[in-house]
Amino acid sequence: MTRILNSECIALVGKKVTIKGWVNSVRSYGKLAFADIRDRSGLIQVVGGLDVGSLKNEFVVEITGTVRDRSEKYFNEKLVTGKIEIEAETVAVLAKSAELPFDLHHPEINISLPVALDNRALSLRNKKIQDVFKIQATIVQAFREYLNSLGFTEIFIPTIVAGSTEGGSEVFPVQYFDYQAYLAQSPQLYKQVLTSIFERVFTVAHAYRAEPSVTTRHLTEYVGLDVEMGFIENWLDLIKTADDVVKVIFKAVSQKHQDILDEYGVTIPKTAKNTPVIKLKDALELIYKRTGRDVRNELDMDPEGEREICRWSLEEYGSDLVFITHFYTKKRAWYSYADPQNPDETLTMDLIGCGVEWISGGQRINDYQQLQEKIISRGQDPKDFELPYGQAFKYGMPPEGGFCIGLERITQNILNLENVRQASLFPRDMERIDNRLAIFGKKIAKIKSDASVPKNTKK
Amino acid sequence: MTRILNSECIALVGKKVTIKGWVNSVRSYGKLAFADIRDRSGLIQVVGGLDVGSLKNEFVVEITGTVRDRSEKYFNEKLVTGKIEIEAETVAVLAKSAELPFDLHHPEINISLPVALDNRALSLRNKKIQDVFKIQATIVQAFREYLNSLGFTEIFIPTIVAGSTEGGSEVFPVQYFDYQAYLAQSPQLYKQVLTSIFERVFTVAHAYRAEPSVTTRHLTEYVGLDVEMGFIENWLDLIKTADDVVKVIFKAVSQKHQDILDEYGVTIPKTAKNTPVIKLKDALELIYKRTGRDVRNELDMDPEGEREICRWSLEEYGSDLVFITHFYTKKRAWYSYADPQNPDETLTMDLIGCGVEWISGGQRINDYQQLQEKIISRGQDPKDFELPYGQAFKYGMPPEGGFCIGLERITQNILNLENVRQASLFPRDMERIDNRLAIFGKKIAKIKSDASVPKNTKK
Repeated sequence: MTRILNSECIALVGKKVTIKGWVNSVRSYGKLAFADIRDRSGLIQVVGGLDVGSLKNEFVVEITGTVRDRSEKYFNEKLVTGKIEIEAETVAVLAKSAELPFDLHHPEINISLPVALDNRALSLRNKKIQDVFKIQATIVQAFREYLNSLGFTEIFIPTIVAGSTEGGSEVFPVQYFDYQAYLAQSPQLYKQVLTSIFERVFTVAHAYRAEPSVTTRHLTEYVGLDVEMGFIENWLDLIKTADDVVKVIFKAVSQKHQDILDEYGVTIPKTAKNTPVIKLKDALELIYKRTGRDVRNELDMDPEGEREICRWSLEEYGSDLVFITHFYTKKRAWYSYADPQNPDETLTMDLIGCGVEWISGGQRINDYQQLQEKIISRGQDPKDFELPYGQAFKYGMPPEGGFCIGLERITQNILNLENVRQASLFPRDMERIDNRLAIFGKKIAKIKSDASVPKNTKK
Repeated sequence: MTRILNSECIALVGKKVTIKGWVNSVRSYGKLAFADIRDRSGLIQVVGGLDVGSLKNEFVVEITGTVRDRSEKYFNEKLVTGKIEIEAETVAVLAKSAELPFDLHHPEINISLPVALDNRALSLRNKKIQDVFKIQATIVQAFREYLNSLGFTEIFIPTIVAGSTEGGSEVFPVQYFDYQAYLAQSPQLYKQVLTSIFERVFTVAHAYRAEPSVTTRHLTEYVGLDVEMGFIENWLDLIKTADDVVKVIFKAVSQKHQDILDEYGVTIPKTAKNTPVIKLKDALELIYKRTGRDVRNELDMDPEGEREICRWSLEEYGSDLVFITHFYTKKRAWYSYADPQNPDETLTMDLIGCGVEWISGGQRINDYQQLQEKIISRGQDPKDFELPYGQAFKYGMPPEGGFCIGLERITQNILNLENVRQASLFPRDMERIDNRLAIFGKKIAKIKSDASVPKNTKK
């Protein structure tokens, strides 16, 4: 018989069905037994005899039986299928399970993150842990559909690169046959090049940061939702697009996953029709005025500043989101476009939401000569950036800019997760590649380090 | 004024517009000059005086003027905008271009692939070269939309792994802080794990093969359209899904890009309602009968065999596509499911189309004990595969299988491109990471090689 999903049984009362799934729990009362069977559509109760009673948690089963209405006193309001059950006729075990090391299906699974990661194939079976990734899939889908509707082209660009992409955080060396290569820190330079081909591009790209620190907001491998737009009228186009993208994502998540937002006890951040935009310098001044904390000479905004500016934005504009703009030239990546009004500031922006960063982006230099000088001024050799990057500018590059949304971070932010690792199916960090490196890792001598890789510039 | 796309001008005859784009060509006749301006919607002719005449190819321009009908004798049937032109009033140069090293916009661009790649940022501006990637974006979009409609969940899995994923071709070592890591040869083991979480999953994943050879069908970094399905009734479900996915892709490409198919002089492969399915052994027998070439004792099918079996399929079933199944156990990856009827053969399949491979896949072993024995029999340590792979099976894994479509290969196959590099925006191979390694590469000493990485098993 063809398999029926648990949720489909609701419409099949009185009919014989075959379901397949995992044993979520078993309750046995002598010759009478109940099992909750889990499939991708949810749970359903099966009632039977010893064959059901002898099942163990996480066994994979195929059960044929008849769908019956439950009597009203046995309704389970927590389940979509709570008014029905299946009277089992045949029970086949497709695969057995070892005994579980912890209680897997309690709604508030009571294990620490390291234990969850040491048991990743198992902990992901917990509904609440798993639901994070349903939201994540929706975020990416909404992102793509929206940009496709605006005439953007999806691009696929490599992650093995010959040099350090853009300075910035440290890079992972790769042994590429007999040559030195690196893992890309971002698709930045390639997506810029492709505005000269397709004008508007996006990519869902893996990127790598060898930051030697373990925090709740960093992964060594992450997924970036990257956007780049040519022929911007002015750089506020970028802010508008970034603002729209985030709101489209919010809408998709709340329409499709209100149940998961409720499960996590969160609400979608409040937004205004136009998210407020404030220059870094003005924001620092504002923080001083509001709190007396004098950050006016800082070159960047610290976490406490990000929280304070969001409080201001919420009070003044009813918006949990706020764009900070005009970061200082010496603190942003070399390709950042200097403000013609004040070359010490760049036409760059961060979207801050609920006290943390969500998006980073800006307009880029599109003049070939100016780029060459910038690269030299950072102590690098333009030849290392010529193909394909410099070449695109040499032959006519439109005014352009873009931004990146970290997929794990936006997932973390929306669900208010404590740790970004909770928003990665198999998180990579300094201490872990699935297994803990300190226990399972194979130590090796460092690849000859390359002095030309610069440090500590920010996108 | 807000920018108008060239193609939008058709509806704006008599109106003043501002367009932006690249100078595709200039024809100057004293005080009268014509320029074709290119944007992402196509070309449009601009007529003007010295300001237009002094433009050079690939300059980035902003032109304001009035849209006029052309007189009928000047219609250009090759352009969508061929019945109109813009009378320029103001011409602003947004960015200049160096002189071009070759004629960029001839329909049959007359440069070799190495020259095209040495000038990648430029050669991609050629319409025909660029159109490959419009088809590619459509392939991926059709793939995702179809699987989403079937209840698949999109997953994002890491590419940095602790060990050789599945044996197979050689791997690229990564210096991961003080530890040895590798670039994943495929998302295979992770997508399998995730059938125990989401049942049906897909991913568009980068994968890496350090094959020390340069052919027209191999890249060292490629994109895989990966699918994995739990609770298959039997393994023919996989063939059905793979068959449907390919046909959905064909339909999307032909509906959206008939112009590009015409430009490349190709037609979508012929398909039958059900693509024929033939066992490897029977296919080899058939080749012997049809051609007299005795390949009956071969363990795999050679390229000439693939071409012959496609000729057979076309003659007998009117199908350019054919599934070859039941590859020999000793030639497939260790996780392949042995046919219960004959354990020397596996429930695996390749989709061959027009003489070359399009898809590879099969059912996988889902019994924990059997997997452990398989890993040991290949001289490997099950502990190296325990997290998260073994763990998923230890706690109950449904019958499952899947397949992978190489994105660059399916693009190459559909457009009948000579070389797979033409189907990669920035192809990586043994000789090139953007620049040619022999000239620009930095040689390094090999990372201490890891003897535990096995060789020469096929997925």
